Amino acid sequence: MSEETLILDGSVKSKEIQEEIKREVEKLEDEEGVVPKLSIVFAGNNPASKSYIKLQQRICDKVGIESEVVDLPGDISEEDLLAELDDLNNDDDVNGILIQMPLPDQVDDDKVIRSIDPDKDLDAFHPYNIGELVIDGDAYVPCTPEGVMALFDMYDIELKGKDVTVVGHSNIVGKPMALLLLNRNATVSVCHIDTKDTASYTTESDIVIVAAGVPNLITADMVKEGAIVIDVGINEVDGKIVGDVDFENVKEKASAITPVPGGAGPMTIAMLLKDTVQSCKDMLAN
Amino acid sequence: MSEETLILDGSVKSKEIQEEIKREVEKLEDEEGVVPKLSIVFAGNNPASKSYIKLQQRICDKVGIESEVVDLPGDISEEDLLAELDDLNNDDDVNGILIQMPLPDQVDDDKVIRSIDPDKDLDAFHPYNIGELVIDGDAYVPCTPEGVMALFDMYDIELKGKDVTVVGHSNIVGKPMALLLLNRNATVSVCHIDTKDTASYTTESDIVIVAAGVPNLITADMVKEGAIVIDVGINEVDGKIVGDVDFENVKEKASAITPVPGGAGPMTIAMLLKDTVQSCKDMLAN
Repeated sequence: MSEETLILDGSVKSKEIQEEIKREVEKLEDEEGVVPKLSIVFAGNNPASKSYIKLQQRICDKVGIESEVVDLPGDISEEDLLAELDDLNNDDDVNGILIQMPLPDQVDDDKVIRSIDPDKDLDAFHPYNIGELVIDGDAYVPCTPEGVMALFDMYDIELKGKDVTVVGHSNIVGKPMALLLLNRNATVSVCHIDTKDTASYTTESDIVIVAAGVPNLITADMVKEGAIVIDVGINEVDGKIVGDVDFENVKEKASAITPVPGGAGPMTIAMLLKDTVQSCKDMLAN
Repeated sequence: MSEETLILDGSVKSKEIQEEIKREVEKLEDEEGVVPKLSIVFAGNNPASKSYIKLQQRICDKVGIESEVVDLPGDISEEDLLAELDDLNNDDDVNGILIQMPLPDQVDDDKVIRSIDPDKDLDAFHPYNIGELVIDGDAYVPCTPEGVMALFDMYDIELKGKDVTVVGHSNIVGKPMALLLLNRNATVSVCHIDTKDTASYTTESDIVIVAAGVPNLITADMVKEGAIVIDVGINEVDGKIVGDVDFENVKEKASAITPVPGGAGPMTIAMLLKDTVQSCKDMLAN
């Protein structure tokens, strides 16, 4: 079985996308004299955030996108943070704004996400963008589920009519993932921590997408023979990065599976780059 | 069995809500000198729309809410319709705006729903409002799924951890219904026309909510013993209004069921009244 399992290689697909973006960025610079720019807003000292930001910046650099970190003190007031955001909203050189969560306790996340200019809100935190997703409109969608959809498309995985279970119902992965799948006419079930029997859903599904943040949550007995398994989890266990899926055993049953690392993660960053370039083009056109 | 089945009586519950609204409207008039007002935008000649609008106006009248129909010609240009909408957005006496769908062909629905002031958009057509629903924020939600949730609450039906299937994935019922249920931690599956085997979902569900617009779509063999069945369908068959559920047979198996008419329908109108009064209060407070 294992030899037949297709490894959905997010690293390779992400690099393909990055190559294309690099060409687009060069073209924008040559023809319009413009370099797309991403601003990452970060407040505090979270080491995981810091290393993720470094990774984002390194990849921006590789494809020629300018990136800046707006590095704010952990004790910044909400008012000051909103003022910084306002400057970014109004800066014509800034095409995309990422708010690195979590924000410090004294800052109201809800207020911040409603204050990003929706046109620069690449991760679709703003209700306007996420609402466009519900009605299948044209707007930014959260980069992680967007990356999973890109992976399906790049591997020609048909979604219409497929039975899909999404495990996890977060605002930034589970719910938008479910909506993207519904918009493509998959049959979608969403399980989460209060679900009585997650296995009763996953064992019947053609595709299982897991974004729960729980290592080894999905075991081989929970997936049907030939299923496609997408692991969006990123967990650190004994200094090693693992997903939410018992990869070694599940891959014996699955027809296709994403590894962690190297699956959904690199696709997320690819979408971020793609959206930054798109925003730059949109801003030039307007 | 049949004697034990609880009929979820939307007519009775709607009237309870209407009584409360009537008292609130009287209080607003006495204390603030203000009468809540709903504007219904209608273009063309659709007879079903006309009779529904009449019903809405009659019930507004009963509870003391002022209603007006902005009755536009079927050949109105998009520009003129948007100008009418703009007037309503800016009219401080108007608390709620309903756009009666379908709009004439020459008018772009997408443009219209993005032009309603979200604060007056009681049916949550605007992406901003529907996006707030995704992230469980505080905003208007589409009145039909809102009415179903109110029915659950008024009958003390627990949702957390329940297996729920929603049949239908429209923007105004199926998708927002699923999101409301997820926000209450139900496990939610959404089936639709492309679903391979809807019965495989409905037979395993504690609660089945149907909004497909297909008479007799849900038959007794498709629900499990003791399930709760909510029928949102409104279809005309041989001059009679029926839902999407084979009511007579399904009620023998269900523990609770909504009739059609007299179930979800009256709850929708009750929510519309409630939201109009809420908008009036919000506008007074701002």
